Amino acid sequence: LTVPLRGQQLLVAFAGGADSLALLVLLCALRETLGLGLAAAHLDHALREESAEDARAAAAFCETLGIPFFCRREDVRKLAEEQGRGLEDAGRHARYAFLEQCRQDCGASWIVTAHHVGDLEEDILLRLVRGAAWPALGGMRAVLPERCVLRPLLMMEKRDLESLLERVGAVWREDASNESREWRRNRMRHDVLPLLHAENPSFSETARRLWRNAREDEVFWKERLEGVIEPCEDGLFLSRKALKALGRAGMLRAVAAAVKQMDCGQTRADILEAMLEAWEQSRFPRVFVFPGFLKAEMTGRGIRFYRSESR
Amino acid sequence: LTVPLRGQQLLVAFAGGADSLALLVLLCALRETLGLGLAAAHLDHALREESAEDARAAAAFCETLGIPFFCRREDVRKLAEEQGRGLEDAGRHARYAFLEQCRQDCGASWIVTAHHVGDLEEDILLRLVRGAAWPALGGMRAVLPERCVLRPLLMMEKRDLESLLERVGAVWREDASNESREWRRNRMRHDVLPLLHAENPSFSETARRLWRNAREDEVFWKERLEGVIEPCEDGLFLSRKALKALGRAGMLRAVAAAVKQMDCGQTRADILEAMLEAWEQSRFPRVFVFPGFLKAEMTGRGIRFYRSESR
Repeated sequence: LTVPLRGQQLLVAFAGGADSLALLVLLCALRETLGLGLAAAHLDHALREESAEDARAAAAFCETLGIPFFCRREDVRKLAEEQGRGLEDAGRHARYAFLEQCRQDCGASWIVTAHHVGDLEEDILLRLVRGAAWPALGGMRAVLPERCVLRPLLMMEKRDLESLLERVGAVWREDASNESREWRRNRMRHDVLPLLHAENPSFSETARRLWRNAREDEVFWKERLEGVIEPCEDGLFLSRKALKALGRAGMLRAVAAAVKQMDCGQTRADILEAMLEAWEQSRFPRVFVFPGFLKAEMTGRGIRFYRSESR
Repeated sequence: LTVPLRGQQLLVAFAGGADSLALLVLLCALRETLGLGLAAAHLDHALREESAEDARAAAAFCETLGIPFFCRREDVRKLAEEQGRGLEDAGRHARYAFLEQCRQDCGASWIVTAHHVGDLEEDILLRLVRGAAWPALGGMRAVLPERCVLRPLLMMEKRDLESLLERVGAVWREDASNESREWRRNRMRHDVLPLLHAENPSFSETARRLWRNAREDEVFWKERLEGVIEPCEDGLFLSRKALKALGRAGMLRAVAAAVKQMDCGQTRADILEAMLEAWEQSRFPRVFVFPGFLKAEMTGRGIRFYRSESR
């Protein structure tokens, strides 16, 4: 997927560490040539003592570069408790909600994040552990049109971003929580990934290749599912006829795509499998419940996806 | 894939550890009911001092059970040097060559191995590290018709096999090399997998689900590639027309399938990618060289796969 950036307004997700600082520096360097409009947004998660200081440093940096800066402080620990989510999950939700609001406020066409190939490697492992199906197992996408998110550095090495910063003399703040084993992501980064890199020093390239493999299959399935998922009065519908034509592998992707279109994030692979089995054995009518109040009603006619807060 | 076993002659790959002992015990228990003919084969890799003793113990066990026993001692270290392979690779080749010969000698329809879900988990990680593409990333198959190999325990837990042995009072020998960090497989087993199980105590089930996902896609691509790979005078041919109809994702699988049909094992993902790119940019005529003297000649007509020892 190629995204034309010339003349676009971009909102940079600016955490303040080396990665997002490098992204900001790179985009600033391209600003005139590409006629970019830039703004930056920073969500203070209020999880560490020094986070307010991080926010001030981010603001100062943007002022130096002449970039409009949005900032909000959110008590993520409280949010997590209120929403019954894990801390990482609550933080991610709060962050993307804030970024999306800023994007709309400043009229940007894209939110740009600084994820690099190290993040991709962690993401692939996290997905493997969580039980993602293919092609989701191949890791986060670089272009998410439906969420207006771009990850232009996803194929880059962190060390290249850091050496860029060193070359331009920029100083960045290390986030102490990057070291903490409290987070699963950090346990992958510090404990699992070094073992895989020891086995294969080109593991980054291997991760990139897996990612490209996943993107190819994503395109393939997307084209194949064209027109298969129909809108219905209160959600989406997969007809018996469409399901029959798709076969097992295709049905898996059709259901996953419908769940995603209903904005319920990643599908639980175990529910998908149970649905497939029920369908093949004609064990319906039956209702499957996904997180986020999404339901899938399976009958002889097909599968209807709808949202309902009732049990 | 369901394989009818009634009345079949089976050759058990009998290493002598808990896994293959449990397999042998299970098959003995089914012998009368299913009318199975059983034989066992053991390759002494001569890599450990006690390996000759292991072979004798295996022979004794088979004698007790009344099962014909084939045994050979092979200097795998020497083989590895001669063939320019790694020790694990050389051992696997020697083992399967010996098993296949025994299978033919005793008129068995299948070689049966004792791989369980723990082996599958290791295999998935090994494939991830090595850079396997999808669906190969999903791990070893349970049924390999072209190599007459069955892995009936692949979805089972090792602890269930061991508790079966304890219940029937069978004593097994621990292979000391299972602990050695000399082998990549063992490093995965002892160093990486425990970290993943700590994150997800149901990781075995996650691995099984990934495996099923891969098998579904394998079937899908197999059906889709039906008739696409044509035989030609000295190998296989993929026509321009067929490649055009397949698209990127399908072309990747067609080339991988052709390499496999030429009996060259797993494809190198990097060569596959380079071929895809060359094809899309019409950068031919060009010859790609795979391990095992396999070559792929790309021209405007399509891709021809053939074996040639010349440069």
